[in-house]
Amino acid sequence: MCDLLRINTDRGTMLSDGKSRFSKDGKPIYHFLGTSTFSEYTVCHVGSVAKINPAAPLEKVCVLSCGICTGFGATVNVAKPKKGSSVAIFGLGAVGLAAAEGARVSGAARIIGVDLNSNRFEEAKKFGVNEFVNPKDHNKPVQEVIAEMTDGGVDRSVECTGSVQAMISAFECVHDGWGVAVLVGVPNKDDAFKTHPVNFLNERTLKGTFYGNYKPRSDLPGVVEMYMNKELEVDKFITHSVPFAEINKAFDLMLSGQSIRCIIRMED
Amino acid sequence: MCDLLRINTDRGTMLSDGKSRFSKDGKPIYHFLGTSTFSEYTVCHVGSVAKINPAAPLEKVCVLSCGICTGFGATVNVAKPKKGSSVAIFGLGAVGLAAAEGARVSGAARIIGVDLNSNRFEEAKKFGVNEFVNPKDHNKPVQEVIAEMTDGGVDRSVECTGSVQAMISAFECVHDGWGVAVLVGVPNKDDAFKTHPVNFLNERTLKGTFYGNYKPRSDLPGVVEMYMNKELEVDKFITHSVPFAEINKAFDLMLSGQSIRCIIRMED
Repeated sequence: MCDLLRINTDRGTMLSDGKSRFSKDGKPIYHFLGTSTFSEYTVCHVGSVAKINPAAPLEKVCVLSCGICTGFGATVNVAKPKKGSSVAIFGLGAVGLAAAEGARVSGAARIIGVDLNSNRFEEAKKFGVNEFVNPKDHNKPVQEVIAEMTDGGVDRSVECTGSVQAMISAFECVHDGWGVAVLVGVPNKDDAFKTHPVNFLNERTLKGTFYGNYKPRSDLPGVVEMYMNKELEVDKFITHSVPFAEINKAFDLMLSGQSIRCIIRMED
Repeated sequence: MCDLLRINTDRGTMLSDGKSRFSKDGKPIYHFLGTSTFSEYTVCHVGSVAKINPAAPLEKVCVLSCGICTGFGATVNVAKPKKGSSVAIFGLGAVGLAAAEGARVSGAARIIGVDLNSNRFEEAKKFGVNEFVNPKDHNKPVQEVIAEMTDGGVDRSVECTGSVQAMISAFECVHDGWGVAVLVGVPNKDDAFKTHPVNFLNERTLKGTFYGNYKPRSDLPGVVEMYMNKELEVDKFITHSVPFAEINKAFDLMLSGQSIRCIIRMED
């Protein structure tokens, strides 16, 4: 974790002088997350810039941002499922699908998708999810459903919802002795993670991750190479593409749940 | 974790026929923890027996039992501190001292002992503990005290108390980004481990362990070898030695807090 550049949502300015580099009608426009990419040119701290393969199509690899890297990295860098193992993914939004893609690339045999919205199951198949659980369809905790499906629990679980209840279920659904649960979601500030400590005594591991444990500057070029080598399939993450002039349409698509993986084309 | 032989405190009998092999005055005496070692001869399931170096002095290596192996293994097998790193040990009873011994053997540079009883600090120095914190001496949470001592947190922590509050402190005192906390203590059945999930988001790891992740039959002979090679110093764990006829004196010493590492000499 970089003490100097770590995302600080309160900052909004350059580190050197505490000022913004953008303005409109004399009023400052603040930086967002240290990159401020919705502009043709931007000013970033050198630590926020990574040099990638110049042959990579920018209108595709721009998807390799916070959500996708976080989900994909949570599986490949943190959960590290073995070939042939079982993985439960909690939440099948963009982050969860990226986590599933990580399980698929890792060679997991069983990828169990858990979501309260069964409409998401069909598309999740493209990302390797091959079993589905909607907690609403069961009158017992989802961790018990998964334990029954898997003879005691999955080898790995990745939680991508931000719901503390899903975090608890994700931890409690891994197998005693070797199970690893990874928490990806950003919780509400008042949420408390509550579980009986005996769940730890049984040799389970609980890990958190930030940005999928990727170090952006040093690791992002390698993720782009995975795309160039056709290991990580980026295109299927893109559901819509709109020109910059229609950027608000992209936000509408996101807010209405029709898309959370829309490309904004700057070249328009 | 062995489904067949895992300690089941409800069992108390042999697996094959559900009966005891001991009796007194016609009444059965039940087995304890699958070994029932307070007798000159015993009947165990083959899976409960490990063959150790015949040159090992039994009156010393008998200390390499549940408590010592659990604490030592929690550090060397689960927390795995690197040479030169910092380790906090919560609880300086026999298990915590064994955890400290594991940190010493691993080459940790800073071994911070945390205990509510400062009388335990002097003896803990023998086990490599070189800094001490009594939470009663501070008017802020012990995890904050440790964070200040260590520029943000320790590399590893091992909790050996069974107090859920110590478990939470042990987790919250490890450093963001790489810290690993290991829970060893057996909690009360109604305890809930509560922490803000953001502590996980910051790339910390929480692990539990059972018997220090040792597999008794396959791993215990190697622990005995560590003693024979003078790596693991077993003798300093022994504070008293009493003959079998005075076994109740040993329990008195334990219950009064004067000894929790007393040898019962069967040969007497």
